[in-house]
Amino acid sequence: MPRDKTPAPSPSASKKAPASSKNGLAKPKVAAALKTKVNPAAAAAQGTSSPAAEPKLALTIGDYLIRRLLDYGMKDIFGIPGDFVLQFYGDLEASPIRVIGCTREDNAGYAADGYARIHGIGGVCVTYCVGGLSVCNSVAGAFAEKSPVVVITGSPGVEERRSNPLLHHRVREFSTQREVFEKITIASTVLDDALTACREIDRCLEACVRFKRPVYIELPRDMIKVRCPYEHVPHTQVVKSDKSALKEALVEAGEMLAKAERPIILAGVEMHRFGLADELIHFAEKFEIPISATLLGKSVISEKHPLFIGIYEGAMCRESVRKYVEQSDCIVMLGTYMTDIDMGIFTAELDTSKTIYVTSETLKISHHHFHDILVSDFVKGLSKLDVKIKQRELPKKPKPVPKFVAVPETAVTSARLFARINELLDEKMVVVADVGDCLFGAADLTIYRDTEFLSPAYYTSMGFAIPAALGVQVARKDLRPIVLVGDGAFQMTCLELSTILRHNFNPIVIVLNNKGYTTERFIQDGPFNDILNWNYHRLPDLLGGGWGFEIRTEGELDQALHAAVNNKETFCLLNVHLDPFDVSPALKRLGERLAQHM
Amino acid sequence: MPRDKTPAPSPSASKKAPASSKNGLAKPKVAAALKTKVNPAAAAAQGTSSPAAEPKLALTIGDYLIRRLLDYGMKDIFGIPGDFVLQFYGDLEASPIRVIGCTREDNAGYAADGYARIHGIGGVCVTYCVGGLSVCNSVAGAFAEKSPVVVITGSPGVEERRSNPLLHHRVREFSTQREVFEKITIASTVLDDALTACREIDRCLEACVRFKRPVYIELPRDMIKVRCPYEHVPHTQVVKSDKSALKEALVEAGEMLAKAERPIILAGVEMHRFGLADELIHFAEKFEIPISATLLGKSVISEKHPLFIGIYEGAMCRESVRKYVEQSDCIVMLGTYMTDIDMGIFTAELDTSKTIYVTSETLKISHHHFHDILVSDFVKGLSKLDVKIKQRELPKKPKPVPKFVAVPETAVTSARLFARINELLDEKMVVVADVGDCLFGAADLTIYRDTEFLSPAYYTSMGFAIPAALGVQVARKDLRPIVLVGDGAFQMTCLELSTILRHNFNPIVIVLNNKGYTTERFIQDGPFNDILNWNYHRLPDLLGGGWGFEIRTEGELDQALHAAVNNKETFCLLNVHLDPFDVSPALKRLGERLAQHM
Repeated sequence: MPRDKTPAPSPSASKKAPASSKNGLAKPKVAAALKTKVNPAAAAAQGTSSPAAEPKLALTIGDYLIRRLLDYGMKDIFGIPGDFVLQFYGDLEASPIRVIGCTREDNAGYAADGYARIHGIGGVCVTYCVGGLSVCNSVAGAFAEKSPVVVITGSPGVEERRSNPLLHHRVREFSTQREVFEKITIASTVLDDALTACREIDRCLEACVRFKRPVYIELPRDMIKVRCPYEHVPHTQVVKSDKSALKEALVEAGEMLAKAERPIILAGVEMHRFGLADELIHFAEKFEIPISATLLGKSVISEKHPLFIGIYEGAMCRESVRKYVEQSDCIVMLGTYMTDIDMGIFTAELDTSKTIYVTSETLKISHHHFHDILVSDFVKGLSKLDVKIKQRELPKKPKPVPKFVAVPETAVTSARLFARINELLDEKMVVVADVGDCLFGAADLTIYRDTEFLSPAYYTSMGFAIPAALGVQVARKDLRPIVLVGDGAFQMTCLELSTILRHNFNPIVIVLNNKGYTTERFIQDGPFNDILNWNYHRLPDLLGGGWGFEIRTEGELDQALHAAVNNKETFCLLNVHLDPFDVSPALKRLGERLAQHM
Repeated sequence: MPRDKTPAPSPSASKKAPASSKNGLAKPKVAAALKTKVNPAAAAAQGTSSPAAEPKLALTIGDYLIRRLLDYGMKDIFGIPGDFVLQFYGDLEASPIRVIGCTREDNAGYAADGYARIHGIGGVCVTYCVGGLSVCNSVAGAFAEKSPVVVITGSPGVEERRSNPLLHHRVREFSTQREVFEKITIASTVLDDALTACREIDRCLEACVRFKRPVYIELPRDMIKVRCPYEHVPHTQVVKSDKSALKEALVEAGEMLAKAERPIILAGVEMHRFGLADELIHFAEKFEIPISATLLGKSVISEKHPLFIGIYEGAMCRESVRKYVEQSDCIVMLGTYMTDIDMGIFTAELDTSKTIYVTSETLKISHHHFHDILVSDFVKGLSKLDVKIKQRELPKKPKPVPKFVAVPETAVTSARLFARINELLDEKMVVVADVGDCLFGAADLTIYRDTEFLSPAYYTSMGFAIPAALGVQVARKDLRPIVLVGDGAFQMTCLELSTILRHNFNPIVIVLNNKGYTTERFIQDGPFNDILNWNYHRLPDLLGGGWGFEIRTEGELDQALHAAVNNKETFCLLNVHLDPFDVSPALKRLGERLAQHM
C-alpha cells in the first residue's frame, strides 16, 4: 500500500544520532516537526487526497506519530505485526525508523527496554490485545525501573466498533486493553479523535521522557490515515524548579557536607536515566567524595574511577563497603531507589538523619522534604557549592585481583567463572545480567564505563537479559554484550537469539546451568524448583547459526571464551555446568534473609 | 517446611475423576469440604498450633483453597514458583493436586486453558507481578472464549506492605496486579482478611464454573498459614430460570419449528462448555434437524454424526453448507457467538427474524429478547417439545474423500497435508490447532467425537497450541494431540515441548513451515512478515528428547507420520516445508475480506 506523500522528515534531522547515549538523554527536535507547513483548507478535506494539493496536506495521524518519534531520536522500534496494526507497519517500513521483528511480543518489550536504557527512549509496536496484553510484564518492568518505553498498539477502527461486534482479539470491552495499560504506564491515550490526536501524542511522548516511564498510544486502525484537521504546533511543557526552595535545599546540603567527617555518595540508577552521571562525577571530584552505587545503579559511573569504592547492598555487599557507607555521617543518595534488593533485603542500616536523598520524585534532607525541585537542578547545584569539606583519609582501594590462571581439569565453580569473566571485560563490552545468581555474582564484576551494566535488579523479571541484549545492539552495534543468564531464565526467552542471529549481532551468552531455580532452593526447596536439563549449547543447531560450547572444566571455559572473543561475526553460547548448590556468597546471604521474611 | 497437619481431603473424594469430561462439567463436591469439622475455640487461637488440638483446628486459608479446588475436581495445576508464592507451592506439593511446572508463565496459562476445555476447570499458580502480569494474554484468551481458569497468585504479605516499601516485583501500587486482573476476569479477590477469605474463595470459584470464565485469587504470603476464625460452610448459590418466561420461550420456539420447511441447528462452543452436547444431539435426532457448527464450536458434536453437514463460517465455508444454513427458515443457534471469524468476517447472511438464538448471556427469538432463562433449561426444554416438524429432504452428505495415496517425489502442499492428516485421525486423538492457516485448513478435518478439536478461533492468539496440548494430556494422557502450528506461532511457545518431554507425553506436532506470517501476507505484505527459517526438526537436539522429521515430499510425509503414530513414547515434530504462498482457499478468502476492512 503506497504511503501518503507527506514530506518525509529530512534525513539529516531524523537519522542523526540522538543526544549522547552516554548520558542517556534524547532531546526532542521539535524544530524538525515545525518545519512541516500545513494547509488548513486542504486539511479540512480530511481523508481525501488531491494530487495537486499533496505537498501542503497536513500529516496523517500515523505520520505525525512517526515524525514525533523521530524528533525524540527513536531510530528503531521492536514488535510483531498483526492485522489491527499492519497499516502502521507499512508506514513504519516507509519511514526512516527501522522495524526489528522479534519472535514474541514480551521479548520485543524487553528489547525496547534495553534499547531505552542505552539510547534514552525505546518503542514497541504490537497488535490489539493478543499483542498488547503480551507485553504487560515487560512494560511493567520498565515502569518499575524507570525505562522510557513507548507502547504503540493497533486496535479496532472507531467506525467498526459502533455496533459492538465480536471482533477477533477482543477480550471484554473495546477499552479493556487501554484500561489495563493505564495501570502500568505513566500516560495513555487512544487516538480516536483527529482534533486532539496530535496533542495527545505530544502529551504522551513528553511524559515518557520526563518521567522516564512507559506510555501507551493506541491507534484505531481507521485513524492511521486520517489527517490532522489543523496546523498543530508540537508542544513541550517546560518544568522549572522553585528557585527559592532550590536555594534553601542547596544551602542546607552544603552545611551538612561542610560539617561531615566522612561523606559518601550513593549513586542510583536515575543518575543514568536523567543523564546526570557527569554532574555526579564533577561533584564527587570537586570535593573528593568517595562513591558507592546500588546494584540497580551499577555502572552509573565507571568502576575504574579512583573514587569508586564498590557496590553497596546492605548485608549482601563486601564488608569494607558496608562499613564505609553505614558509618558515614553524610550520605548523599543521588537517584537511588531504596528497594529491598538494593538495600540487601532491608539489612541496610542507613541513618536517615544523616542523608541527603534526591530522586525525581523526592528531595529529603535529614527528616524534612522539599517539593518542586528538579533532580537535575539539585545535582548540578551540588557541584557548584562553595563550601569547604574537611580533610579526610579516603578509603583504601581493594587489592587488585590476581590474574586468572585456568586449572584445566578442575570443574568450573561460580566464583571462578565470575573471576574469568572479569578478565574478559573491556571498554567495548556491556554486561547484561538476568535475575538470580548471575545478578548477585555480577555485582562484583568491574565495569569500565557508564551504561555498561544492565539488569532488572529491582523488578527482577526472569528472562530479561537475552532480549535486552538484542535491544542494546540495535542501539549500539559496537557494544558487545556479555549476557549472564541462569538456565531457568534462559528457557523463558532464549529464542530471541533468532533475531540476534538475523541481524548478525554478536553477544556472548553465558548460561549458568545449575539445573533449576537455584535462588528459590535457598528459600524453600521442592521438586517444583527442578527443570529439565537441556543441551543449551545445541540451540545453534535449531536456529541455524551461532556457536555453542559445552563447558565443565576451567580449561574448556578458557578455550571457549578465547574462541568467543575472537568470533565477532555471530553470537556465542556457553553452557556452563555448575553444581546446583554452588552459589555466590551474596546469594546465600540473600536466600537466608528472604526465608526469614516469608 | 512441614505442612500443617489439618486433615487431608479423603483421596476417594478428591482424586476421583470429575464429572465426565465429555460434557466438560466438573460439579463441586461441597460435601467433602463440609465433613471437616472446625473447633471454634482452637480457631480463635489463630496462627498458634497446639499439637493436642491439632485434629480440630480450622483449615488455613491456603488449605481451604486447596480443599475447594479439589471439590471442583481440579487434580492438576500449572505454573512457575517464585518467592511470593513458594509457601503455597509447598502446600500444593503436599496435597493431592499435581503441580505441572512450565517453562514460562504464559505457557502455563495456555496449558491451564487447554486443561479447562477438556476437564471443566483449570488452574495456574504464579508469583506476584513478574508471574501474574506474564499470564495476562493467556487469561484474556480464556475470558474471551469462556474457558474456566482459576488464577492463583502470591503477593507481598499484608504486614510487610504497611510502610509502603519498594519490595521487588512491585510495579506501582501493591494493588496494581489485582487492578489489571479485574479487567480480564469475571471475579477477583485478595485474601487479605481471614474473616472473609473462605467466602471469597467460594464466590470466585463459583463464578468461574458458572460463567466459564477466569477468576483471580491473590494470596498475600503472610495469609497462607492463617487459620479461618470460624466454621465456614461452603456456599453455592442456586440460580434458576424464570419458569413462566421459559415456558413462553419454548412455546414460541416450538411454533417456529413446527412451521419451518427447512430448520437447521448451528452449534456453538457453549454447548461444550456447559455440557449440553448430549441434549443438543437428543433434540436434533428427535426432530431430524441437520446440524452445522461454528469454527469455535467445531467438535461440539461428532462430525461423523449422520445429521452433521459441516462447519458454517459465512463466505469462508463450503458452498453447500453456506447455502443450506442461509436458506433455512428456522436457524436454531445454540451457544454460538457471532464473532467475526465464525461469521466469515461478517460475510454471514443470517436472517435474524428466522433465528432462535440462545447463549448463557442472551435468549432471543426473532427480534425479541427473553431474560432470566438458563441456557441449559432452554436446550433441555427443546428436546422435550411436543410439536410435529414437517417432512423435509435432508441435505445430501458430501461424497467420501478418496483415500490418500502419497505421490512420493511430489512436494507437499497445504491441501494434500490436510488430506493426509484427515486419514490419521481416530477416536483417541484430539486436534489442537493454532492460529493462521493451520486453523482455517483444519476446519475441514473430520473430528470423530466431542472435545476433539481445540483452538483459539475467536481470540486467535498465536502460540496457543503447543502449551494447550500439554494441558490436554495432563487432563487425559490417553488422548493423543495432533498439534497443527505455523512457524510463526511455533517460534513463540515451542519450548513448552520441554514440559511435554518431562512428562513423557506424545503429541504429534506438525509445523506448517511457510516461512513467515502467511495470513498477514494476504492483508498487507512487507519484510515485517518474514521470519528466520529455523531447523524446527532439530528442537529435540536442544531438549534432549523427542523425534524430529524434516519433510518436503509426500513420501517423506507419509513415512514420518507412520513412524510418529507408532512411536507412542515421546513427542514427534514434523517440519513440513510449504510454499510461502500456498494456503488454504478459506484463508485466501479471509485475507481478501480482512484487507477490505482495513
